[in-house]
Amino acid sequence: MNTIESLQWRYATKKFDDTKKLSNSKINILKEAFNLTATSYGLQPIKLVVIQNKEIQEQLVPASWNQQQVVQASHVLVICIQDTFTSKDVENYFKLIKKIRNTPDEVLNSFKDFLVSEMDKKSTEEITVWNKNQAYLALGNLLTVCALEEIDACPMEGFIPEQYDEILNLKSQNLTAVLVLPVGFRAEEDYMKDLAKVRKDLQDSIIEIS
Amino acid sequence: MNTIESLQWRYATKKFDDTKKLSNSKINILKEAFNLTATSYGLQPIKLVVIQNKEIQEQLVPASWNQQQVVQASHVLVICIQDTFTSKDVENYFKLIKKIRNTPDEVLNSFKDFLVSEMDKKSTEEITVWNKNQAYLALGNLLTVCALEEIDACPMEGFIPEQYDEILNLKSQNLTAVLVLPVGFRAEEDYMKDLAKVRKDLQDSIIEIS
Repeated sequence: MNTIESLQWRYATKKFDDTKKLSNSKINILKEAFNLTATSYGLQPIKLVVIQNKEIQEQLVPASWNQQQVVQASHVLVICIQDTFTSKDVENYFKLIKKIRNTPDEVLNSFKDFLVSEMDKKSTEEITVWNKNQAYLALGNLLTVCALEEIDACPMEGFIPEQYDEILNLKSQNLTAVLVLPVGFRAEEDYMKDLAKVRKDLQDSIIEIS
Repeated sequence: MNTIESLQWRYATKKFDDTKKLSNSKINILKEAFNLTATSYGLQPIKLVVIQNKEIQEQLVPASWNQQQVVQASHVLVICIQDTFTSKDVENYFKLIKKIRNTPDEVLNSFKDFLVSEMDKKSTEEITVWNKNQAYLALGNLLTVCALEEIDACPMEGFIPEQYDEILNLKSQNLTAVLVLPVGFRAEEDYMKDLAKVRKDLQDSIIEIS
């Protein structure tokens, strides 16, 4: 399949085949791809929880408006944002740049000062919105990677974050669940898999200026 | 390149080669990929402006904090959200489902009623946040598609939406610019292209629950 064929192949899977498991190599691709997601300034204010545990997946069902995909799926991915994101995190980011690129402090400092002042300008709420945006960006990347790797997935905004936080013990790790993505294999009997994709005509989606 | 190698190949291009143009077939892939992006409930509250016009690109430079990529790049993509998104848009979506899938009204109506009531529960501001999230999702998809197609790109949050709106005449089309993505070819002299990618160690980005 070429890129467009892969994107046409994907759909929001309504029923997973609960007898099939994704291989470790496929899960590793998803982990690496998540970590390679572009984020604002490269700050990576997001984490990915990878769940492969039927008991916990079962607990997530009522926290997911009873959507059964979270228990049927091979694995459940939960994209989280940091609850607090401070100048300490910016400091750590610059330590990481220095470690990886060996960039001299005098080169990094002006960018660091700029970023710290950007963060200082934002309210806690604005930082949360900004970080949530990065979670969606990561979801867009993961959905496309799933399509390319022929991994079925169902992106979900509909769940109760507080219950996810409790079941997955996220608060103690300074995290909040933002998006949920069960991944695995579409069930043979999922009638949605055979339906035509509903998308606007290209001319209603694109404006060309030349 | 496999998927991960493609994601490692991509970087936020700081300088484009302004002598090179993307082929129509590459631009068509980006348009199709954008239209195939997953969106919340499939509502597609987003549009993509595709600019290939040096005069207009030149005007976008001061509106982009003087980032020269918008004029150097082969094309500039601007991801927009609808300014207003109402039950009329939901109605149009269901007309589209009916046209494409020929689904009977009695099947569609309960989902339509649910969606209309979901929209009614949200304030205008909440709908804007929701739609912006979908713009980021689309950006995540597009960045990965660019990587796969070996198209260089530089995602930008840093620009002045009001000036974009004016230059591109967006308000009259009920649109607001949310994200900007110059695309084309990295310049030979962009020193950023040879720098190691800065990413957290995988264990700092992923939490496994098994």
